Amino acid sequence: MLIVMQSQVSEEKIEKVVDYIKQKGFDAHISKGEDHTVIGAVGRKVIDKRDIELLDGVKEVIRISSPYKLVSRVFKNSDTVIEVNGVKIGGGYTAMIAGPCTIETYDQMETTAKKLSECGVKILRGGAFKPRTSPYAFQGLGEEGLKIIREVADKYNMAVTSEVMEVSQIPMFEKYVDILQVGARNMQNFNLLKGLGEVRKPVLLKRGLCSTIEEWLMSAEYIMAGGNREVILCERGIRTFEHMTRNTLDLSAIPVVQKISHLPIVVDPSHATGLRDKVAPMSKAALAAGADGLIIEVHNSPETALCDGAQSLHIEEYENLHKELLELSKVLHKTLV
Amino acid sequence: MLIVMQSQVSEEKIEKVVDYIKQKGFDAHISKGEDHTVIGAVGRKVIDKRDIELLDGVKEVIRISSPYKLVSRVFKNSDTVIEVNGVKIGGGYTAMIAGPCTIETYDQMETTAKKLSECGVKILRGGAFKPRTSPYAFQGLGEEGLKIIREVADKYNMAVTSEVMEVSQIPMFEKYVDILQVGARNMQNFNLLKGLGEVRKPVLLKRGLCSTIEEWLMSAEYIMAGGNREVILCERGIRTFEHMTRNTLDLSAIPVVQKISHLPIVVDPSHATGLRDKVAPMSKAALAAGADGLIIEVHNSPETALCDGAQSLHIEEYENLHKELLELSKVLHKTLV
Amino acid sequence: MLIVMQSQVSEEKIEKVVDYIKQKGFDAHISKGEDHTVIGAVGRKVIDKRDIELLDGVKEVIRISSPYKLVSRVFKNSDTVIEVNGVKIGGGYTAMIAGPCTIETYDQMETTAKKLSECGVKILRGGAFKPRTSPYAFQGLGEEGLKIIREVADKYNMAVTSEVMEVSQIPMFEKYVDILQVGARNMQNFNLLKGLGEVRKPVLLKRGLCSTIEEWLMSAEYIMAGGNREVILCERGIRTFEHMTRNTLDLSAIPVVQKISHLPIVVDPSHATGLRDKVAPMSKAALAAGADGLIIEVHNSPETALCDGAQSLHIEEYENLHKELLELSKVLHKTLV
Amino acid sequence: MLIVMQSQVSEEKIEKVVDYIKQKGFDAHISKGEDHTVIGAVGRKVIDKRDIELLDGVKEVIRISSPYKLVSRVFKNSDTVIEVNGVKIGGGYTAMIAGPCTIETYDQMETTAKKLSECGVKILRGGAFKPRTSPYAFQGLGEEGLKIIREVADKYNMAVTSEVMEVSQIPMFEKYVDILQVGARNMQNFNLLKGLGEVRKPVLLKRGLCSTIEEWLMSAEYIMAGGNREVILCERGIRTFEHMTRNTLDLSAIPVVQKISHLPIVVDPSHATGLRDKVAPMSKAALAAGADGLIIEVHNSPETALCDGAQSLHIEEYENLHKELLELSKVLHKTLV
Repeated sequence: MLIVMQSQVSEEKIEKVVDYIKQKGFDAHISKGEDHTVIGAVGRKVIDKRDIELLDGVKEVIRISSPYKLVSRVFKNSDTVIEVNGVKIGGGYTAMIAGPCTIETYDQMETTAKKLSECGVKILRGGAFKPRTSPYAFQGLGEEGLKIIREVADKYNMAVTSEVMEVSQIPMFEKYVDILQVGARNMQNFNLLKGLGEVRKPVLLKRGLCSTIEEWLMSAEYIMAGGNREVILCERGIRTFEHMTRNTLDLSAIPVVQKISHLPIVVDPSHATGLRDKVAPMSKAALAAGADGLIIEVHNSPETALCDGAQSLHIEEYENLHKELLELSKVLHKTLV
Repeated sequence: MLIVMQSQVSEEKIEKVVDYIKQKGFDAHISKGEDHTVIGAVGRKVIDKRDIELLDGVKEVIRISSPYKLVSRVFKNSDTVIEVNGVKIGGGYTAMIAGPCTIETYDQMETTAKKLSECGVKILRGGAFKPRTSPYAFQGLGEEGLKIIREVADKYNMAVTSEVMEVSQIPMFEKYVDILQVGARNMQNFNLLKGLGEVRKPVLLKRGLCSTIEEWLMSAEYIMAGGNREVILCERGIRTFEHMTRNTLDLSAIPVVQKISHLPIVVDPSHATGLRDKVAPMSKAALAAGADGLIIEVHNSPETALCDGAQSLHIEEYENLHKELLELSKVLHKTLV
Repeated sequence: MLIVMQSQVSEEKIEKVVDYIKQKGFDAHISKGEDHTVIGAVGRKVIDKRDIELLDGVKEVIRISSPYKLVSRVFKNSDTVIEVNGVKIGGGYTAMIAGPCTIETYDQMETTAKKLSECGVKILRGGAFKPRTSPYAFQGLGEEGLKIIREVADKYNMAVTSEVMEVSQIPMFEKYVDILQVGARNMQNFNLLKGLGEVRKPVLLKRGLCSTIEEWLMSAEYIMAGGNREVILCERGIRTFEHMTRNTLDLSAIPVVQKISHLPIVVDPSHATGLRDKVAPMSKAALAAGADGLIIEVHNSPETALCDGAQSLHIEEYENLHKELLELSKVLHKTLV
Repeated sequence: MLIVMQSQVSEEKIEKVVDYIKQKGFDAHISKGEDHTVIGAVGRKVIDKRDIELLDGVKEVIRISSPYKLVSRVFKNSDTVIEVNGVKIGGGYTAMIAGPCTIETYDQMETTAKKLSECGVKILRGGAFKPRTSPYAFQGLGEEGLKIIREVADKYNMAVTSEVMEVSQIPMFEKYVDILQVGARNMQNFNLLKGLGEVRKPVLLKRGLCSTIEEWLMSAEYIMAGGNREVILCERGIRTFEHMTRNTLDLSAIPVVQKISHLPIVVDPSHATGLRDKVAPMSKAALAAGADGLIIEVHNSPETALCDGAQSLHIEEYENLHKELLELSKVLHKTLV
């Protein structure tokens, strides 16, 4: 941490700041420039920098060390590759995750999974507990849904991912799913994150609608600090002033995250755009930008889907997209499954 | 719901749309204009309007009825006045809520509560469970903190508000606090909202960092739909591109909410600005804009506070502000306690 | 400027950075901490800090000195008070500016100005050149409009403010108006700003829809750098995700600006909210937050206004608001004219 | 336009609304639903819908027809293909535009143009007039710069694009450049747009930093309404809360625009990200998303560039990227020059 003092500040004020940070457990290194004296505060304690900014004579306080540790490439330089059901995610391996927004019936899941499996998809998605803005909307099948998706996935030798909504549900999810998904609205549900730190299955952590990349990585840090080293980040669009798409898909986050962190990052173009006909171009764009995977909503009959049918691909649309992505991945020197 | 068809659309397409909405449980009223045929869909079902937008020949779908019911002035026209510890909130009554960000020790709470009580404050705030961005930061005293704030509040005849972080904590909070607070990060923690619908104590619902006013009201609707009619809305700043303040306090939300909803709305200028010297001007502005209350962070020693000291007022600063607000409230024809 | 080197960086890399900044005209002061070596670059040159961030071994570059000079309280500590037509703006003096969005006819202006003048308003506003999003909308009366507003203002001994849209119009505006207004869309029209630097009349500079406070102050710096020291800042709402109001009025900008800069800051609640019934509460809030003035749209017949009638007050509404603001200003110890 | 009346509204109020819109030049079609009466207002006049929303008994007013006409696929269904110097932009043809941010010297331009030309680039970019946030930063070479870029481009048989900053500069630009560029800050400089409507050379219109897609298309409409049918749209990032990249590149805008409008859309990944190492992944992503071209900053010595060196590619980096894009374009069935 660097503390920049105001110009022409008195020695007394400098001393008071030095005393303050020492008392908080930091060492102080003073460096006098022509305009400004700068105090380097060296130490590992967590401190709110605004507390120092309010001391007399202080102009500005600058944090040097990153707030995240375990998620950073400083802690682990090589790409983390997560393996689920024989599918690798990260480090040049791109994974396709597909399925309906919501688990509705066994037949719906069976039809969809069969087709997706034929395309080569190895990870099946589907929601059992649905976070809905309106209390009057369909809220999901619950545990019954998890049983269905597990059964269907086993039939086609697929892995399962589904969204866990609170800490008390974790044991239930451990029984049925292979990747526990954290939704955008729960990205800073810290109790849930702590609970997932104790799980020994991968966690797919969606970026919050208005979360900075730094906050997102800090949420991953929560999970890793608990002992779970298998976190998959998922970009799914941020909220901006633009309203022609549901959210604004921030694909620049891919190279930004990949520079700072060793964790794999996948993209959800379905929730980001909210519109079926935007899913294919954004999927290809995400792959070209370097995404380690895609999570795409596919429904055997989007017109009658109970939730988010408008952003779900028809199965034939998915089949075409899958082929295009396979071709693209070759040019991009990526292995796509 | 109004369904606007594309210009020069065929009769067949119109019929298909009519069939679709009837099948979904709506009545259809067709009206042909020069350019566009408009289909009115009448009914009470919840439907994703994008599903209709994807039908052939549809140009646009427009929702007419508001998604919220119980929170709206259509359901209840007169202002809801919530009474806690003899203090009224709403309908011309403005309530002051003050206290530290975090409960640290009995002495800290005792000193602060004594002084605030002398100013005339009747509702004491203080956090026992703290949602922190970093897993390495202080996370609060937990139940021990709730015991402290209750004991101190009773000594000075004050009511207590504190933030509940998940549904399993509700019974504990019912024991100690008078107003259960939902933090901005939990505004769409729907399980928590449902749990709070069964409580018979007021809930203070903070607006999410990137939540629209409509989403905020929908979250209040969740609580009211569960049977709890005492919801206090709390504006605490939204996230924008401006970084000189922590958040952007959206004071226009006050008259906007007061037009649509009968629920009281209070303002938290401490979290919104994140800076002590901005709290007084923003408190006065909130009052002038029509806020039904203010929730302000005050600490007996902000310099040594464990959390958010930088945005906490010194007690003497609060005393001055309280006097200024009392004077202002007279000119504004409001009763401030 | 502080250059923070990566941990365990080689001496050679440090030297290369030092050479680079010396070559760019800076002095270098090296300070070695436990983790990081920090290089202080001292000098007055303008440099893009990203250029240094890209050098080998550099972790982060931090600008210390503010980019603005003349607008800052470091350059001039006391409040700038601008006087127009005997009305003071700034330094405890609050000025009311009112009038229609657009100058339509002599009669419209005459009726409005007479009434406003009776309320005590000394500065009349009205647009002659209108920036419209659609090429098919009414674009203003042009110079004819300026003549009308000047004639009417003279009749009632009022000053005039109107929006100048490009540098070539400045001489025309100097003939007719007392305060030249820069619209939000032109806040970074640098040619216009340079032209206004040579004018010797006050400039009212609106904040851009998505401009940070820093960028806004830099635009004021452009005008002041040209020699014109009379700049009035005008907050008029920023663009956010919230759509129930046209823009989000950022009242926190008032205390933020007043801390950094000596320039007066006024508020335009009409454009910020876009809704007539939100103008009064937001005007009172702006005054309570410390605004040095208000600029409010008033129309003698908003229902038939050619532009922005929906956000214009009826004259009687303005009369009531003016009285309320006068009362408020007394409690706030401000002089309002 | 549809006018939705409040539920249980009186006949009298409905009549008043009907009278009002007739007087404004619209026809009225009344349609009574169970809950709401809806009035269809049919006509071609421009009206502020808020004026109607303020009438007694009106619940909501909904615009049906799009505000843009000439830019829309309703006006012209087939893709507009713009040809410059034998290079096609749009309709399956993807154009590469490259060059430095700023024209500095003849040698700089000559070296850069030679290399780019060898890669196959046919359109050279370079700024002569620079809009800079700070009045103390380098402002460009002016007309001298335009002469240099023209001379160099002619030597290598390239076309030229450069940014025009105000209406008075148009004749000068017509002499030297093939494509007139409008910068993000000038997207709503309506005088400039009108001036460009009379030009008979293509205009590259950058999206404003906080402009919606609708506003952007309306600005294109200004140019087309003036008679110039050759507008190239350019997405270059929007301002959001995320600060790890300079702006957030909104690639979803590509399929959104391509659905509504026949105009070609290109992407500027250099300004969007502001960081050299993000340019390649974002260029590939833009191409995969369907962009009709890319405009990329390349400098022969980014370390010593006078402006935006940090986001400029080294020539060798560009050469590699160009090859990768060529390969990608084959898989995507696009012709890239």
